[in-house]
Amino acid sequence: MRTTQLFFQTFKEAPSDADIISHQLLERGGYIKRLGRGIYSYTPLMMRVFKKMLTIVREELENAGAQEISLPFLHPAQLWKESGRWDDFTAEKLLYTLEDREGHSYCLAPTHEEVVVSLVTNWVTSYKQFPFNLYQIGNKFRDEIRPRFGLMRGKEFLMKDGYSFCRNEQEMDAQYKAMRTAYSNIFRRLGLEFVLVEAHGGKIGKGKSEEFQVIADVGEDAVMVCGEYAANVEATKSIPPSYTYENSLKSMEQVATPETKTIEELSVFLKVDPQQILKTLVFKLIYADRKEFVAIGIRGDRQINLLKVEEKFGPIETLQASEDEVKRLTGANVGFIGPLNTKLTFHADKSTEPMTNFVCASNEDDLHTINVNWERDLPKPEFDDFLLAEEGDSCPHIPDGTYKVQRGIEVGHIFNIGTKYTEKLGAHFQDENGKMKPIWMGTYGIGIGRTAAACIEQSHDERGIIWPKILAPFRIMITAASSKDPALVETAEKLYKELASYEPLMDDRNERLGFKLRDSDLIGIPFKLIVGKSFTNEGKVEIESRVGEKHLIAPEDIGSWAQKHLAL
Amino acid sequence: MRTTQLFFQTFKEAPSDADIISHQLLERGGYIKRLGRGIYSYTPLMMRVFKKMLTIVREELENAGAQEISLPFLHPAQLWKESGRWDDFTAEKLLYTLEDREGHSYCLAPTHEEVVVSLVTNWVTSYKQFPFNLYQIGNKFRDEIRPRFGLMRGKEFLMKDGYSFCRNEQEMDAQYKAMRTAYSNIFRRLGLEFVLVEAHGGKIGKGKSEEFQVIADVGEDAVMVCGEYAANVEATKSIPPSYTYENSLKSMEQVATPETKTIEELSVFLKVDPQQILKTLVFKLIYADRKEFVAIGIRGDRQINLLKVEEKFGPIETLQASEDEVKRLTGANVGFIGPLNTKLTFHADKSTEPMTNFVCASNEDDLHTINVNWERDLPKPEFDDFLLAEEGDSCPHIPDGTYKVQRGIEVGHIFNIGTKYTEKLGAHFQDENGKMKPIWMGTYGIGIGRTAAACIEQSHDERGIIWPKILAPFRIMITAASSKDPALVETAEKLYKELASYEPLMDDRNERLGFKLRDSDLIGIPFKLIVGKSFTNEGKVEIESRVGEKHLIAPEDIGSWAQKHLAL
Repeated sequence: MRTTQLFFQTFKEAPSDADIISHQLLERGGYIKRLGRGIYSYTPLMMRVFKKMLTIVREELENAGAQEISLPFLHPAQLWKESGRWDDFTAEKLLYTLEDREGHSYCLAPTHEEVVVSLVTNWVTSYKQFPFNLYQIGNKFRDEIRPRFGLMRGKEFLMKDGYSFCRNEQEMDAQYKAMRTAYSNIFRRLGLEFVLVEAHGGKIGKGKSEEFQVIADVGEDAVMVCGEYAANVEATKSIPPSYTYENSLKSMEQVATPETKTIEELSVFLKVDPQQILKTLVFKLIYADRKEFVAIGIRGDRQINLLKVEEKFGPIETLQASEDEVKRLTGANVGFIGPLNTKLTFHADKSTEPMTNFVCASNEDDLHTINVNWERDLPKPEFDDFLLAEEGDSCPHIPDGTYKVQRGIEVGHIFNIGTKYTEKLGAHFQDENGKMKPIWMGTYGIGIGRTAAACIEQSHDERGIIWPKILAPFRIMITAASSKDPALVETAEKLYKELASYEPLMDDRNERLGFKLRDSDLIGIPFKLIVGKSFTNEGKVEIESRVGEKHLIAPEDIGSWAQKHLAL
Repeated sequence: MRTTQLFFQTFKEAPSDADIISHQLLERGGYIKRLGRGIYSYTPLMMRVFKKMLTIVREELENAGAQEISLPFLHPAQLWKESGRWDDFTAEKLLYTLEDREGHSYCLAPTHEEVVVSLVTNWVTSYKQFPFNLYQIGNKFRDEIRPRFGLMRGKEFLMKDGYSFCRNEQEMDAQYKAMRTAYSNIFRRLGLEFVLVEAHGGKIGKGKSEEFQVIADVGEDAVMVCGEYAANVEATKSIPPSYTYENSLKSMEQVATPETKTIEELSVFLKVDPQQILKTLVFKLIYADRKEFVAIGIRGDRQINLLKVEEKFGPIETLQASEDEVKRLTGANVGFIGPLNTKLTFHADKSTEPMTNFVCASNEDDLHTINVNWERDLPKPEFDDFLLAEEGDSCPHIPDGTYKVQRGIEVGHIFNIGTKYTEKLGAHFQDENGKMKPIWMGTYGIGIGRTAAACIEQSHDERGIIWPKILAPFRIMITAASSKDPALVETAEKLYKELASYEPLMDDRNERLGFKLRDSDLIGIPFKLIVGKSFTNEGKVEIESRVGEKHLIAPEDIGSWAQKHLAL
């Protein structure tokens, strides 16, 4: 390709909304152009990178036995109502909804579990047809509150999504492992440093689930890392640093504690560590048919993980109760809610189990009770894991290991969702014994645009993008130092022809050399070949790698050089 | 690929809404599955066909210098309002519209002229950057009144669309011709019989425009064909069969003509040929800022072409005036409207120019005037071409040629739209003299799903689809006549391996041979290879082509046979 024929434009400055380097470089290099907030057009340069990426994605998936399909973007609302997710998604306003001329409702696909199940239903009726794995590559639509960071979080974005179908859990486990291997191969081939992170399923569902996270400062996800093991902060099981409680139980006593609404204020006022205080929070659990409130206690220095609450109680949505609701339900204000004399169901985090002589509130304003003890003063509640993990917590998977917090970019997600969707949507099959059973299902996704952006976050310098050879839109830029010197131009053209199979970009613009070199570095081409002074003086061309290694090479040696450095 | 591993299902019966053979066979062969009205999922079989088709499309387009891009589906309403098409499309309810959480309006892309212009704007500023040609492959969305015929007319459908950008008309003409050649190559390589049809631009705009129509009985378009030349019925310029009018002018006379609301009734009542009657119709022209009414006369035996009216007057929408509007505007009822004493602007079709002693109405109920003559009785109006072409009309492009009507499936459309969009959206460049000018633009489309359906309409039999080798999802089906005979299975497996590079489908299902052969024919695989009786008896395998040619071949000769018959 010649630069004069390429639809191509570079910029010195990034637009003002480009907060992270990948977004800045994609815009400055003319890879993307903003159409609206969180909506981008992809140029020929971007498409060249995506195609290379997708070739790798397809190769690894087809090697693992997956078959490509394509599902519509317009989804009948009815299907999403049957799966129960119409309400989930519209509650958060994440769903784009619309009507056709006859008044039928649709949504724009944010994901395709419902539709792929509808494809499989009635077509797959016998256990003999399992397992199989279907994938597609296409856009997804989410009405994000804060679309940002270019290709990282858009209203419309390119994804690979896949779905495996199995007759039982064992078969599903094998499919899940095959996808985990395929995904690891993909991200490794793309040159990404990533961690495999135990995850919480969020809106997709419960079940075994892992994320592929690229560690980068701009990552939107907090990842808890401990040696080989990593987990999404919401999914992390951890043990807080221990605290020594007294063995001898003291007498319980009520103490006036005016204006101590926070644990910090209370801790100062009572001269006790936060670890000696049992903090209680009230949560509102919204189910399809009812609302419930529950009080949960936790060690005073720690926070509650909302998703663990949701997992325990299984509502559609979980919110912290408002101040008014707390007052109405307990008679006391926030800050004075506790397990003593409460009308609410009370649960507690495991961190509170060893506590003795602890401080807690008793649902009366401006009062706390000290030296409270389980069993003696109040029945032991159900202890569960509601703890939001923090850096320094112990990791139960690695002996003596403690967690560090890192920032991650979620580029892939694999998920065993079991029979959640197939049961709701009636996708059944006849097993070996003639019994009808729901199909087991896995769901797998890669954010294609986000992965490209993650590559840039991990590999760039002050001059621009540094693509790995396997992803670069062109593998080498060739140019004559002066377009007015026929000897230089002729040699450049000859080398361009000779390197045709290595995806060269011939910069044939009538511009200064420095300008052309800067463009090449900005868009991230791995090598620059310059026919210039060294050619005039000593008959050699200059080759410079994107990271600065320079060589002089005789034109007749270019073939063997290319085979060594440009071949994939 | 093995049938047991393919996500695959065939059916004896087509669904009841499948009215045409391509729709029936695509559903029966498990190529598509209906998700909603006019919305289909594509299975691995369908994707295999699409990928082959798209490889050809991409090859021809890139050979012609086009570069692949990808544009969003979510389009900000503002952009469509600037181009003026928001109102055009919403008036016909063709546009899916939606709002995001902040209340901003969007439409779902029915086409991408606006968005591709917005991509080019500000990036292309100098005449040196022209010409270039951008294309993409992706879905389009149209809220069709009557989605039907499977992939022929959907609410969501797969298209290739492309756009060329030039600095002037000559450069644009060259691009247009290059695309016309590329499109002809594509359809020829797909094995389609097609005609290149002069077209009316419809909602896209005015300007040179041609359609690629596949001639088929189920085609939704009427195509006027005369030898080498063909035109869309709406775009056809034609000359109606001539009629001999009297030379000597008679005296004009008013005649009572009760209950003669139609030309037929009037013709019987007055005992004159319809050709002697000047028929007048009233049209309502809706502009952005006003409505206008115009009366148009035409020879009594012919119809007016609404799109020619639209082209002449340029409104956003053209409708025939309602009975009430006619009465209010003329004082008379429909059937008694004419050029005499009219308050309306009167235009006439060229077919009326030679008329003498003609009959027309005079805007009074139950009356007509006979022996009316231009100039003597009323001023000659502006004569224009408003004629709807009919079979038997003369073709002005071919000496002595007359038109035949054929049914066509529009699979491609190429269009020189000039500066219509670039002017409205402010896409300008600096020409050689430093002057700012709007960019010239062409737009080009291929309906990918519709093209696949057209292939089937042209190539099928009572057993199923007959794919050309170049499009078939698999080039040969291989099976052992009995899965219980190890010698047969072993040979089949050996041949399957040997033919691996020719996209074989190994039907390894434990089913009767007839069942497997029927499936192979239904989905349209060009060859079937059966290891059966002939192998047991004489050591030869049977090969049968999709159209019934049978051969017996020794397994050791399969390599050379394949090279001859299966290579592309």
